[in-house]
Amino acid sequence: FRRLSQENRPIPEPGPNEVLLQMHSVGICGSDVHYWQNGRIGDFVLKKPMVLGHEASGRVAKVGSEVKHLKVGDRVAIEPGVPREMDEFFKTGRYNLSPTIFFCATPPDDGNLCRYYTHSANFCYKLPDNVTFEEGALIEPLSVGIHACRRAGVTLGSTVFVCGADLSEERLLMAKDLGADFLLTVRRGDGAQQLAKSVEEMLGAQPHITIECTGVESCIQTAIYATRSGGVVVLVGLGSELATVPLINAAVREVDIRGVFRYCNTWPMAIAMLASGKVNVKPLVTHRFPLEQAVQAFETTRQGLGIKVMLKCDKNDQNP
Amino acid sequence: FRRLSQENRPIPEPGPNEVLLQMHSVGICGSDVHYWQNGRIGDFVLKKPMVLGHEASGRVAKVGSEVKHLKVGDRVAIEPGVPREMDEFFKTGRYNLSPTIFFCATPPDDGNLCRYYTHSANFCYKLPDNVTFEEGALIEPLSVGIHACRRAGVTLGSTVFVCGADLSEERLLMAKDLGADFLLTVRRGDGAQQLAKSVEEMLGAQPHITIECTGVESCIQTAIYATRSGGVVVLVGLGSELATVPLINAAVREVDIRGVFRYCNTWPMAIAMLASGKVNVKPLVTHRFPLEQAVQAFETTRQGLGIKVMLKCDKNDQNP
Amino acid sequence: FRRLSQENRPIPEPGPNEVLLQMHSVGICGSDVHYWQNGRIGDFVLKKPMVLGHEASGRVAKVGSEVKHLKVGDRVAIEPGVPREMDEFFKTGRYNLSPTIFFCATPPDDGNLCRYYTHSANFCYKLPDNVTFEEGALIEPLSVGIHACRRAGVTLGSTVFVCGADLSEERLLMAKDLGADFLLTVRRGDGAQQLAKSVEEMLGAQPHITIECTGVESCIQTAIYATRSGGVVVLVGLGSELATVPLINAAVREVDIRGVFRYCNTWPMAIAMLASGKVNVKPLVTHRFPLEQAVQAFETTRQGLGIKVMLKCDKNDQNP
Amino acid sequence: FRRLSQENRPIPEPGPNEVLLQMHSVGICGSDVHYWQNGRIGDFVLKKPMVLGHEASGRVAKVGSEVKHLKVGDRVAIEPGVPREMDEFFKTGRYNLSPTIFFCATPPDDGNLCRYYTHSANFCYKLPDNVTFEEGALIEPLSVGIHACRRAGVTLGSTVFVCGADLSEERLLMAKDLGADFLLTVRRGDGAQQLAKSVEEMLGAQPHITIECTGVESCIQTAIYATRSGGVVVLVGLGSELATVPLINAAVREVDIRGVFRYCNTWPMAIAMLASGKVNVKPLVTHRFPLEQAVQAFETTRQGLGIKVMLKCDKNDQNP
Repeated sequence: FRRLSQENRPIPEPGPNEVLLQMHSVGICGSDVHYWQNGRIGDFVLKKPMVLGHEASGRVAKVGSEVKHLKVGDRVAIEPGVPREMDEFFKTGRYNLSPTIFFCATPPDDGNLCRYYTHSANFCYKLPDNVTFEEGALIEPLSVGIHACRRAGVTLGSTVFVCGADLSEERLLMAKDLGADFLLTVRRGDGAQQLAKSVEEMLGAQPHITIECTGVESCIQTAIYATRSGGVVVLVGLGSELATVPLINAAVREVDIRGVFRYCNTWPMAIAMLASGKVNVKPLVTHRFPLEQAVQAFETTRQGLGIKVMLKCDKNDQNP
Repeated sequence: FRRLSQENRPIPEPGPNEVLLQMHSVGICGSDVHYWQNGRIGDFVLKKPMVLGHEASGRVAKVGSEVKHLKVGDRVAIEPGVPREMDEFFKTGRYNLSPTIFFCATPPDDGNLCRYYTHSANFCYKLPDNVTFEEGALIEPLSVGIHACRRAGVTLGSTVFVCGADLSEERLLMAKDLGADFLLTVRRGDGAQQLAKSVEEMLGAQPHITIECTGVESCIQTAIYATRSGGVVVLVGLGSELATVPLINAAVREVDIRGVFRYCNTWPMAIAMLASGKVNVKPLVTHRFPLEQAVQAFETTRQGLGIKVMLKCDKNDQNP
Repeated sequence: FRRLSQENRPIPEPGPNEVLLQMHSVGICGSDVHYWQNGRIGDFVLKKPMVLGHEASGRVAKVGSEVKHLKVGDRVAIEPGVPREMDEFFKTGRYNLSPTIFFCATPPDDGNLCRYYTHSANFCYKLPDNVTFEEGALIEPLSVGIHACRRAGVTLGSTVFVCGADLSEERLLMAKDLGADFLLTVRRGDGAQQLAKSVEEMLGAQPHITIECTGVESCIQTAIYATRSGGVVVLVGLGSELATVPLINAAVREVDIRGVFRYCNTWPMAIAMLASGKVNVKPLVTHRFPLEQAVQAFETTRQGLGIKVMLKCDKNDQNP
Repeated sequence: FRRLSQENRPIPEPGPNEVLLQMHSVGICGSDVHYWQNGRIGDFVLKKPMVLGHEASGRVAKVGSEVKHLKVGDRVAIEPGVPREMDEFFKTGRYNLSPTIFFCATPPDDGNLCRYYTHSANFCYKLPDNVTFEEGALIEPLSVGIHACRRAGVTLGSTVFVCGADLSEERLLMAKDLGADFLLTVRRGDGAQQLAKSVEEMLGAQPHITIECTGVESCIQTAIYATRSGGVVVLVGLGSELATVPLINAAVREVDIRGVFRYCNTWPMAIAMLASGKVNVKPLVTHRFPLEQAVQAFETTRQGLGIKVMLKCDKNDQNP
């Protein structure tokens, strides 16, 4: 099953608290490619064929008997994680940590890269008229950022240092276009403490918050040294199981180290951000393919071309 | 100057916002012994002779012209750290992180192991009648615990796992007497994940919070593996500059890693705890010496005998 | 239906995520009496007969097909509120605010004052061996206190002023026995600011937190004046719809005013508190009646006799 | 002394931790006019002549002996409140609540509407090159907004309802220009619950947060009814000592009521906001007068003309 294929399945029927969605736009995530290429991510191992896709939006085609807040025709963004159990994590508002959560395209749960898909209605969020389907699909990756910023306590006036994995010129320029104030390119051999010093000089002060997106050991070290006393390092990138880091430096300066696992309670905020125009995610979509050309779309992502590749699942509406 | 000695100095005069204290009880801390034996702790290096002592209480002998909340005769506990500058850390309530803070017996600042000592009146806290001078002196080490618990968010009903450095039978039994529910002795060769499993079995659930007091790499690893998803590991113990730890395990389970640097805003809470009888620190004092026998007292601490060695600075009152 | 009566109903069958409980102990709450006497509480109006009871514990008699954490024979405490919908309140950890929540003995939902009762298994909490059924039933009223303390931010060392409705000598002495340090009896004609002054004098300082349990306007005024700047007033008692209060005094001293609606996420903490012996609720039970004598039990509560009246639902085990 | 006058005073000398400032721009606040017209605000009563002005910026003309972070020529914004004592409020990061705080133009403390003025260097914040003196002066009123938003927990995606006192067409249009999405004009006789309903309909949902800036009783009532369960009402406007409000409605829906007293720790955030261009305060300045014409400037403010009147204190530089 480590082969991409397309197959016909019957249109599913929504349960009482579900909606049936006619899928519109589904973005391809690095994790989709990773499952395809490697058959696993960490402890999540593919044991049978799985539908990919979890960055998605669609239109309500049918509503379950108990659903009140959605109706046929509503355009919605889909939150791919739906808790199955009212456990301690869900009860305390951190359902992303629930070990039994359903999650699109994480084995063994199927994703939503298809024509018709049923999902818990409470995890489908109606899009305002001024938010497109593609923006709706991009709420998923945006949510990773929102959750990281929330965990970090980013607020107006925060000085934030983002360690990004990417050295591609195109992506760095996009980052600058979308709001980064400074860019610092790392060279082989740069020491962590020396880089931290460069960050401070560039920003005029140590950052309150560092968001580490590479998972690379030397970058985590830089993240710790660079952050202001009393600040926060958020670990978004994942590297190897064990990392050697200056824990004492972090500890005696009370620099907290916090990780993220996906997200929770981000869709309403994301929709408000997009509707208000405060955040612009549209330029991130660099490629579009109709669902029939999914294999080419995945190949494009695998080769690292562009930024976000979007699959268009509605034959009659391939617009953004 | 890496030699303990006693000398006569003039009785100092309090500034407008200071009080002159006749010292009563001063506990010996591991750091005092460390400065004596090694002349430094991390970046804090002795460059000239320094008065030791920072776990202290005394009686007000004279008040500065601006002091309103204290009067001659008041019994007070001394918070040894006094911010010198109204910097961003002080303004936001985290004055312990202020890089220019005065701190008793951290080079180059003198401590208060002496007969008469002046201190900022705002960092001297009046003791209620039912709290002894020795309890007052013990507020300093108690504050380390309070600050760690606050940083961790310990509350009623929290399940807490404390990794203690100490393997001494006497200290473990004292821990049990003073409130620990279970003891788990580590054996050479125990793996971190296996120990984490033992902790869970013993407690019946993973702890919400782990307070790591050893600084030993394998214990930090155990701390991370042992803590419940969404929980907190607090690093109190300090080991070597770099540590190899399972950061990914912490990150994807959103187990936060937080350090502590001394404490802030703990004296009022500590006094309330002691006055109410909710916490009993008295049994911790196992040895007492008059100030004249300070060398023997330090030697006792150096040898790891007993738990807390107390120096009695008031010739006319050597009571607890 | 404003008449207490007992009737036979078939033993219900648990759904897949439910358990069937053989009820053991059910406390009578003021609200039970209020529904009986008045047929309504605020907007909650009785429109058909309703089973009373929501302070309850019992033994698992049968488990639904999906239930994993409980088994037949387990002794459990019952959290009476079970969210029906995964709405924004539930998702963010405040399910008590969910407008569609099921709640025992709030119209139109039946309570659990009966022999056999089914409940969501995730809202049944296993009791440790050293916690009795009656303690389990008392977790419900204890939860009101826990939730109020959490909303207030009560922690070790907090100075707390509790405005209690009750002027009964017996209840005041019980309060003192169970931990209150001072008692202040209010006399007709005492002014709010004058009382606030008395509170400060008695405590030696203004309280950080005031928990107002009367709902009486003059007490809410006292609560605001009495609380220290930067502190919190929690409103537990409910009075008339509109109240005239010194909002400016609260505002310019940044004294927050916070209400409570029932509770959420309190059972695990309450069980930990009871199991550890840190809290003793046993003396609160002053009367016990077998279920057959429910009418006398309600009459006892209505007359304000004793403190907590407990109904014993298990014919074969009437022990605490 | 309830007469505006100008007089010559000697140029003061900065203390060791102070700077001497050549004042540049000082905004006139409603409170300045109020002291002029009424001689008091609440408990703050004028007992001798007082220099007005507390929305100010200037240039460093001389630095005290201990000052390290500023040098002659630096352009700075002035935070008018400087704590005098290291009391419990200052130590916990809420120095605005310190009862002994110095505050410009609050009796008996003089303000900074003059040519030369000395101030604590730690409460002078260096302005970046792209932030003007007038923007620096406007940080003071902006801080009121920042502090209110912080107390409320406003974040990206929050739906906020602002009750503004003002019915002037010019100010409402300015509000819309500067970011308000909807305007709702209140008519005499509108009921509080009915207005709350209109707010919900206009926003499409109840606001998470209401910021009440009028102090009018009926508006506070509307604020409470309008706010979503679990949300926050912040009281910025001050009305009469006692207010009659639906406290129960707030309490059972856990809508918190929080006041503000000035602000703390806002200048760094405000400077970051202005420097980044995320907030535009420039259009608020509608009138400018040289210091010599202060009387006309005050008269303009008293008549409610325009929005912000700015006094220009530097004869050689009357630019924004």
